[in-house]
Amino acid sequence: MITLSSDFGTPYPAAMKGVLLRRTDARLVDVAHDFPRQDVRATAFWLREVLPYFPAATHLVVVDPGVGTDRAAIVVEAAGHTFVAPDNGVVVPAVREIAGDDFDVYEVAYDDDGTASNTFHGRDVFAPAAADVHDSPTIAGVERFSPTEKFVDLTFPTPTVDEETATGEVLVVDDFGNVVTNLPGRLLDGLDRASVDGEVVPVRRSYAAVDAGDRVVTVGSHGNVELAVNRGRGDDAFGLSVGDRVTVDHA
Amino acid sequence: MITLSSDFGTPYPAAMKGVLLRRTDARLVDVAHDFPRQDVRATAFWLREVLPYFPAATHLVVVDPGVGTDRAAIVVEAAGHTFVAPDNGVVVPAVREIAGDDFDVYEVAYDDDGTASNTFHGRDVFAPAAADVHDSPTIAGVERFSPTEKFVDLTFPTPTVDEETATGEVLVVDDFGNVVTNLPGRLLDGLDRASVDGEVVPVRRSYAAVDAGDRVVTVGSHGNVELAVNRGRGDDAFGLSVGDRVTVDHA
Amino acid sequence: MITLSSDFGTPYPAAMKGVLLRRTDARLVDVAHDFPRQDVRATAFWLREVLPYFPAATHLVVVDPGVGTDRAAIVVEAAGHTFVAPDNGVVVPAVREIAGDDFDVYEVAYDDDGTASNTFHGRDVFAPAAADVHDSPTIAGVERFSPTEKFVDLTFPTPTVDEETATGEVLVVDDFGNVVTNLPGRLLDGLDRASVDGEVVPVRRSYAAVDAGDRVVTVGSHGNVELAVNRGRGDDAFGLSVGDRVTVDHA
Repeated sequence: MITLSSDFGTPYPAAMKGVLLRRTDARLVDVAHDFPRQDVRATAFWLREVLPYFPAATHLVVVDPGVGTDRAAIVVEAAGHTFVAPDNGVVVPAVREIAGDDFDVYEVAYDDDGTASNTFHGRDVFAPAAADVHDSPTIAGVERFSPTEKFVDLTFPTPTVDEETATGEVLVVDDFGNVVTNLPGRLLDGLDRASVDGEVVPVRRSYAAVDAGDRVVTVGSHGNVELAVNRGRGDDAFGLSVGDRVTVDHA
Repeated sequence: MITLSSDFGTPYPAAMKGVLLRRTDARLVDVAHDFPRQDVRATAFWLREVLPYFPAATHLVVVDPGVGTDRAAIVVEAAGHTFVAPDNGVVVPAVREIAGDDFDVYEVAYDDDGTASNTFHGRDVFAPAAADVHDSPTIAGVERFSPTEKFVDLTFPTPTVDEETATGEVLVVDDFGNVVTNLPGRLLDGLDRASVDGEVVPVRRSYAAVDAGDRVVTVGSHGNVELAVNRGRGDDAFGLSVGDRVTVDHA
Repeated sequence: MITLSSDFGTPYPAAMKGVLLRRTDARLVDVAHDFPRQDVRATAFWLREVLPYFPAATHLVVVDPGVGTDRAAIVVEAAGHTFVAPDNGVVVPAVREIAGDDFDVYEVAYDDDGTASNTFHGRDVFAPAAADVHDSPTIAGVERFSPTEKFVDLTFPTPTVDEETATGEVLVVDDFGNVVTNLPGRLLDGLDRASVDGEVVPVRRSYAAVDAGDRVVTVGSHGNVELAVNRGRGDDAFGLSVGDRVTVDHA
């Protein structure tokens, strides 16, 4: 099984599928092709949320603002899963979620002589590598893959949590407008309301527990504190964007 | 075969796919994941239009504004098809289109002890249930499914049709801006023009039968009267939204 | 294998999938369903870019502004690939890219007696034809397909290229806002900068070789000259739309 993730929109992902299908009989599963454009950090967050739910698979990931520069192409082997991606950290949080620190990294050699296009490595470098990864008995056996200790790391900021106050930041805003923070959901245990940046908001187990249009603090499916509006957009209501600092206190 | 329908956008549907693929070898077919957000009625309309074209399958449907409340999760068995969805009526029109009133409903027991997340039952409740439905020889044989007579019904309004005048309402507006009413297409039989809310508009068999930018009344692929603009948006041109009343007379 | 391409958005492609899955066990691969709406020329360009990467397959393509008029439905057989589409030229550039002038065209007979809807031939005419194409040992053996020499052609304009000046036009603007011209990429060989409509812009091998927000001239993955902005929209920065004339000189 090969999963496909990119920020390509339409119709470039189909060229990757064509390249894969010419080379392998693997089952193809689209994860998404509308990850936030060239946003390595947000994509890394979402991949950490969804890829661990898959059975062992080859994960082809192409969110690649550095395409055509000298950034490396890598393969990561982790607990039966294999990731094929640009070396910009985009798969690292998912790798760590699945395998902790027990993973191996390989660099993928590719021609820089004009054979591979400089603008579409998804089709010309990563898809062929993913097909080889899928169909080869061992990663180490593919000639153009060489083990490396070097890779670009990516970690999310750690919140500051005191007894009654926690300060973190907005990691991503999802399609619904829900504001996902890096604050652990257990902060809300036993609370009926919380103070978010100084304003008191009800704490509930679900969006629908408040009236339509009302703000709510809840624990998202990712286990983090989420700031939302029932049937509305939390980012607008709370005035928060990615990277903004958020303080949550007992109220 | 398991079909997937939701209003999740990106990338939550991939988590459901991962959960399914860990549990079953079933073929997965995406119906759509951009149904109008939290709009049970519009999704119910579209599912009634598309699911009957499928061969017998398990249909996983998650448009679920009541997630985390006490709404039930149900399985519906109907003429060889099986539907797994929240008990909010979203699959009922498709079920009736396929099987009339000859269907069986089961309630799905799920833990409310914090094991299932309160915000993502698609991943934690419905996807596992769909995998079990697909792989079990009988629905009744799955321990946590129990037969029930109770379910939330959903029906579309019936138009008032006289000899020369019909009054109905807008059911949905599609991606093209075409206004889909609940008026039966046979109303237009033999007509060359009709009066829509008092304005005379040509009746044609296709959008392209009028000039680009012109309004047209036609019969949509669903068999209902549709108000459209050739290469334009009918909702803007007719000033109509979902739920608006529409009167069509002989002109 | 059957690939699916359309401008249907949501959820009409699912009805085509249902019709296909009732008739054939073929693997289904989505190319895209958000091709520019009713834009035959842009879709033809993108299909020429992506379909040649696929192994031999049946390609179902429905971008069909003339649905319900007397335009024909055709099947094209070309170098092992088969295309099923309205006769409006949408598949012709892809066919020629794959097979040159060595291809055969068949007209698909379909009832115009009200059996097929007049607004959704994708579901009622093209999907059944694609299933028959896929499962029949020969195209010529399907009774309702008859060989024809007539079909609607579609070609892209040829640029005027002198020693130091080339004049072409904008073929399409992609999802990223990159402006794709019909000028051959070799024009930029050895150049460090070029004059685009009189303004000097750097020529680079990749978007990322200029600062974020800066304009760049490069060769796209399609081999043509592309006008872009690193992490921005080239169409806005260059003030260019589809069909606009573009002149590139040595600077």
